[in-house]
Amino acid sequence: MTQASIITIGDELLIGQVIDTNSAWMAQELNKAGIRVVRRVAVGDVWDEIWTALDEEQKYADIILITGGLGPTADGITKPLLCKYFNGTLVVHEETKQNVINIFTQLNRPLIDRNLKQAEVPDVCTVLMNKRGTAPGMLFNKGGKVFVSMPGVPHEMKGMMTDDVIPLLLERFTFPAIIHKTLLTAGVGESFLAELIKDFEESLPEQIKLAYLPNYGMVRLRLSATGTDARETEQAVSGFFETLKTLVAEYLVTDVDEPMQQVVGKLLLSKGKTMCTAESCTGGYIAHLLTAIPGSSKFYDGSVVSYSYQAKEDLLQVDKFTLETRGAVSEEIVLQMAAGALQHIKSDYVIAVSGIMGPDGGMPDKPVGTVWIAIGDQHKIQAHKLYFRFDRQRNVQLTAVHALNLLRKFILGTE
Amino acid sequence: MTQASIITIGDELLIGQVIDTNSAWMAQELNKAGIRVVRRVAVGDVWDEIWTALDEEQKYADIILITGGLGPTADGITKPLLCKYFNGTLVVHEETKQNVINIFTQLNRPLIDRNLKQAEVPDVCTVLMNKRGTAPGMLFNKGGKVFVSMPGVPHEMKGMMTDDVIPLLLERFTFPAIIHKTLLTAGVGESFLAELIKDFEESLPEQIKLAYLPNYGMVRLRLSATGTDARETEQAVSGFFETLKTLVAEYLVTDVDEPMQQVVGKLLLSKGKTMCTAESCTGGYIAHLLTAIPGSSKFYDGSVVSYSYQAKEDLLQVDKFTLETRGAVSEEIVLQMAAGALQHIKSDYVIAVSGIMGPDGGMPDKPVGTVWIAIGDQHKIQAHKLYFRFDRQRNVQLTAVHALNLLRKFILGTE
Repeated sequence: MTQASIITIGDELLIGQVIDTNSAWMAQELNKAGIRVVRRVAVGDVWDEIWTALDEEQKYADIILITGGLGPTADGITKPLLCKYFNGTLVVHEETKQNVINIFTQLNRPLIDRNLKQAEVPDVCTVLMNKRGTAPGMLFNKGGKVFVSMPGVPHEMKGMMTDDVIPLLLERFTFPAIIHKTLLTAGVGESFLAELIKDFEESLPEQIKLAYLPNYGMVRLRLSATGTDARETEQAVSGFFETLKTLVAEYLVTDVDEPMQQVVGKLLLSKGKTMCTAESCTGGYIAHLLTAIPGSSKFYDGSVVSYSYQAKEDLLQVDKFTLETRGAVSEEIVLQMAAGALQHIKSDYVIAVSGIMGPDGGMPDKPVGTVWIAIGDQHKIQAHKLYFRFDRQRNVQLTAVHALNLLRKFILGTE
Repeated sequence: MTQASIITIGDELLIGQVIDTNSAWMAQELNKAGIRVVRRVAVGDVWDEIWTALDEEQKYADIILITGGLGPTADGITKPLLCKYFNGTLVVHEETKQNVINIFTQLNRPLIDRNLKQAEVPDVCTVLMNKRGTAPGMLFNKGGKVFVSMPGVPHEMKGMMTDDVIPLLLERFTFPAIIHKTLLTAGVGESFLAELIKDFEESLPEQIKLAYLPNYGMVRLRLSATGTDARETEQAVSGFFETLKTLVAEYLVTDVDEPMQQVVGKLLLSKGKTMCTAESCTGGYIAHLLTAIPGSSKFYDGSVVSYSYQAKEDLLQVDKFTLETRGAVSEEIVLQMAAGALQHIKSDYVIAVSGIMGPDGGMPDKPVGTVWIAIGDQHKIQAHKLYFRFDRQRNVQLTAVHALNLLRKFILGTE
């Protein structure tokens, strides 16, 4: 079975200054194409470490994809190294040179020697044109293995993968079918779920694997099947997936691998309804999750992020006396916020949240992690009190996902 | 020099279903403690691949930190593997067992055998108590190397690293000092910057490295120094860092490794001022960036996320006729949005944004990526037109960071 390994290059990855999102995206795309990723390795901008990684990874994989280390500045040692590793000589690639000149002309920035250096490539590689930046991609063959070097800038790498790398790999290798099917459950723990589907899990044939992926206090279940034929593999896994869905029906949120906001968005679209939000403690994060979905303006109208008392009073008509006597984190206020948002934004549904996310602001009767969530429509608004016990970032994420799930249940009438 | 390697275990990392944020956080903390991370490797839930990774990584590192694969469900094969790898036998760890029982009692969830299995550990390890979950950490010694296995759940891993792992490593090894100093520039390209500081870069001693980290069309510069004494290393790098700051003074945003929203937040705090936002195309993302900062309520009042026309008209008093004649993405509308937000939220400063983030919604005269940004205070509001050419997510991020930078310059009077 043809396997791939991903090498990411850059000191910034090893000191944790940057989170590696490239590898995840690459792994997703490779998997869709039927290419299994066996390892991902990150190394620094250090000659020996990069060299060793190239030596090592070809032991485990047939395809070695490399990102990073190709910038125009002095810490880019990757290109000379690749040139030496594959016994080449640096030569100017005319088409790339013209591309660099065009980009600098467009940006109206001075072009210097350093930029033109980007057009130099080892004469032993196939050049992959970069339509989104100056550094070209390079494809090398050695000992039956394929090595591809790409820039580390995410949108440049993504374009190159989609336009060139994956089509080239599909031409060159024959891949098995890999089919993943994922569902999301809510309201049940990982162990309890495991007990519930124990017999099912034991009945799975060897080529179908089950994985538990807990996050935000919810558990995703994934079936992964490998086979020679895509349609047969799809059929084989579909039967088991239907059984799994029936077994966990009580807790099932969605049978597609999608985040909670997408589930809510689709539900609203299917009913031709819209929603709005009034956010205090989540500070716009729910709005951000929803508006990150292309086309979200069809189901999402907007939010009032009422961080200050002034904003709560003026924009949502929250009552000043209630604010002062009950505090911003209270059932009364979150109900008033929801009503205020509905009144102005005139959506069909509303979510309002107010809580204490930490690390400061906790009180004896309202410790950090206390959250009030109101859910409703023009007829009825109801409040829920939740309590999370994590750090600020995670509390915000948990509040958002749980609020969206509460709205989902409200719309479905299962709340 | 003592070096560390990080192994993350989980199929979800190799199919790209989950972005690995654990490694970045671990690398940051290890670096702070003076521990250099040389490699990061991700492998699947596959016996041979995990075994190979353990064999391999000890060739490059003295400390091997492992996360993931310890969940209560059947795909957790890591613990039996570790037991075999280090020649141990699984035994019940009483303290962990009590911890598991306590957690399930608190959560009021049924405790099953599978959960109690979490209390089994190889008899050859030092157990690290998990104060935030059920899976314990395990520390092994072999051939002068230290191996630590931790759960993959981020907040459990983080707690264990801070409370136990780093203190234990500091006791056991002597580490050199590693000092990083980072500054952020805006309005200048990577190559041009490199040319500007070429002589400086060449003058750096061998133990100080310079790196260019471009992102969001801005460039961070990082000096990294290694030495035996923390104070001497700090002094050595500080001198060079001051020179670097002088060289790039014209483009300098901050001389601390912090994101743009933190720079703006600190600036507002230092002046005792507050700000608000009116967001259309960024859909709450600017609000989210600002409110993710602990204590942000001291400088941030709130936002109107006006996705629909109704929200723009009702909450921001944007003129209906202007909306219909000029369109939502126009100079006039973004100026009205800014004025409307200031009027209601009564902050000192405002940012308003309206644009087309894609993939749909582009028009011949307003292609995808067109953004209007208004910046102002109670006396003056000015509009800027920007154009980005990327995907939806990146356009939103770029709009947010550039809007914050425009406000920073407006406050400083350098706009």
